[in-house]
Amino acid sequence: MNNSYIVDYRVLRDYCKKLIMTQNVPEEEAFIIADSLVDADLCGVESHGVSRMTIYMKRLEKGVVANKCEIKIEQEYAAGAAINACNSMGMVVGVRAMQKCIDKAKESGCCFITVNNSNHYGMASYFVKMAAEQNMVGVTGTNAPPNIAPWGSYKAYVGTNPLAVSIPTKGEPIILDMAPSIVAMGKIILAAKLGKDIPEGWAITKEGKPTTNAVEASKGTVLPIGGPKGYGLSLIMDILCGILSGAQFGPHLNNMWNDFVNPQNVGHIFCAIDICKYTDVDRFKDRVEQMISEIKALPKNPGVEELFVPGEIEQRRRKERKEKGIEISDVVYQELKGLGKKYNVSFYL
Amino acid sequence: MNNSYIVDYRVLRDYCKKLIMTQNVPEEEAFIIADSLVDADLCGVESHGVSRMTIYMKRLEKGVVANKCEIKIEQEYAAGAAINACNSMGMVVGVRAMQKCIDKAKESGCCFITVNNSNHYGMASYFVKMAAEQNMVGVTGTNAPPNIAPWGSYKAYVGTNPLAVSIPTKGEPIILDMAPSIVAMGKIILAAKLGKDIPEGWAITKEGKPTTNAVEASKGTVLPIGGPKGYGLSLIMDILCGILSGAQFGPHLNNMWNDFVNPQNVGHIFCAIDICKYTDVDRFKDRVEQMISEIKALPKNPGVEELFVPGEIEQRRRKERKEKGIEISDVVYQELKGLGKKYNVSFYL
Repeated sequence: MNNSYIVDYRVLRDYCKKLIMTQNVPEEEAFIIADSLVDADLCGVESHGVSRMTIYMKRLEKGVVANKCEIKIEQEYAAGAAINACNSMGMVVGVRAMQKCIDKAKESGCCFITVNNSNHYGMASYFVKMAAEQNMVGVTGTNAPPNIAPWGSYKAYVGTNPLAVSIPTKGEPIILDMAPSIVAMGKIILAAKLGKDIPEGWAITKEGKPTTNAVEASKGTVLPIGGPKGYGLSLIMDILCGILSGAQFGPHLNNMWNDFVNPQNVGHIFCAIDICKYTDVDRFKDRVEQMISEIKALPKNPGVEELFVPGEIEQRRRKERKEKGIEISDVVYQELKGLGKKYNVSFYL
Repeated sequence: MNNSYIVDYRVLRDYCKKLIMTQNVPEEEAFIIADSLVDADLCGVESHGVSRMTIYMKRLEKGVVANKCEIKIEQEYAAGAAINACNSMGMVVGVRAMQKCIDKAKESGCCFITVNNSNHYGMASYFVKMAAEQNMVGVTGTNAPPNIAPWGSYKAYVGTNPLAVSIPTKGEPIILDMAPSIVAMGKIILAAKLGKDIPEGWAITKEGKPTTNAVEASKGTVLPIGGPKGYGLSLIMDILCGILSGAQFGPHLNNMWNDFVNPQNVGHIFCAIDICKYTDVDRFKDRVEQMISEIKALPKNPGVEELFVPGEIEQRRRKERKEKGIEISDVVYQELKGLGKKYNVSFYL
């Protein structure tokens, strides 16, 4: 028995798309969902990759998320819009919202859009890449169910709400896509599954005690970066994504994994800034390239082979895996095979 | 001899204003500079308070910074503007830029403005408060000379570039105002002066070694929050404030403390988001208050008396010090006295 399989990303994407389409999701929308998941696997962000297919399919099947994306624009201005996602799949509404942001920023300089009544939207960097391709700075964030405690407490209240920002360059964009926690809860859950310990400083138990025991940690909360700073970042993101948008916030967000009755009511924000409205695009890119070269030439710590800018490692993985294929664990491979059987899609990975 | 003096904030502000006016700074502008400095002391951010008067006066006197604020709007759109600060004092141009942001956001929903050719602009929270007073979310950031190394290096390249965000509430705004480093370099310099050690994890020596020796640390670099994440935040802020605006970036920024010939060419960003364009303002504030109450009611770690939202501690200090006066160290008191003598302003603190 194999421990893993190598799959071409186009084949994987096509298979996932077909599975999603069995739930009456229009082909174009199914493509976006599949493309976002596969792109996460290409980048090495497996937590947001095709391992999520089982839960997405279940939520579509149960009807707890809408199978067609029908957004409602509640308010609209030259540089803003408040969008009601009407319980659509997060990735699809995310692409539509970012596209609207880009269109409006082309006219007005920048645009900021909120989205409510949405669902898990996958990897945040997927959306800001769209802005970078149009020579814009892209920004996005989302809220998520709680797993970080306010500083001074040990009770989860805010989520590991990510913030992503893209900067166009002459090559691939610089993309910062970060949660405000030291590590993702996914890493701790994986360590627990494998019976491994975790370093001190990653998480605390549900009683608030420091721990290196991954099982205890997985029931507790992850620690924010910079203590009160990471908590503050997470809180601000929850206020913008949850309260400003009119979605839910903090512990009031419904859980994707075990609630198949109530929609999640997640909120997102999107922002695009059109570089040519502020400076010459070529000059901007020249100076960013200068910055990258200067950073690459700095002295390195012992054992460090190369210095990177944000998103560069993910971009290298994407390039390599597009050529050589994506390695899928046996667990995920069997899950995907099982989904084919369940939803009557012939399996060909 | 006293170790410190208690001074009324209005008296302190007035005295600083008079000092600044001796350098042909218009009264309204001198007030903004003095008010920003004194507000930092009110909040307990002494590193950005009146202890900076000596260097500001010296820069004004040497003419390395313009004494009158004459900004040039290079480009302007419904939701954006590119401003050339023409080497004005950072606080004054900051107030003008944020006001422009607020005005444009009132029409367009949001606005994003860049500023180049500027100077140190004091405490970032000073500007986002303006947006909160207009029921807007305010965002600002600035770049600063390098004291953080890219992750994997030990050579400073980016600054402790702060990011500030304000959220209006029914009372005082929530304000996150954070540098992407574990601590401010100012704290390390202070420890070095006092001959004290610093905790491990705050800084590294200029050779890249971990240290608890404050003197060694003060010659090295401060560590970013969350390792590569804090470095990434700092880099993105430098690209937006330095490159997008057309200002300088990274090690090319001129130093405020020892270069009295070349203007600093610092860059800033400002953004305002008009809440009523996205949701009902009363509903927004009700839900933020609900969030604050829920956080206050969470269980606390041993020894923790109260849980706070960002900016709350600073706001309490401001209120208390407005009533009871600001405590000024003898060193700073003597500096201010000396400035009075030098610039012929009678001393009355």
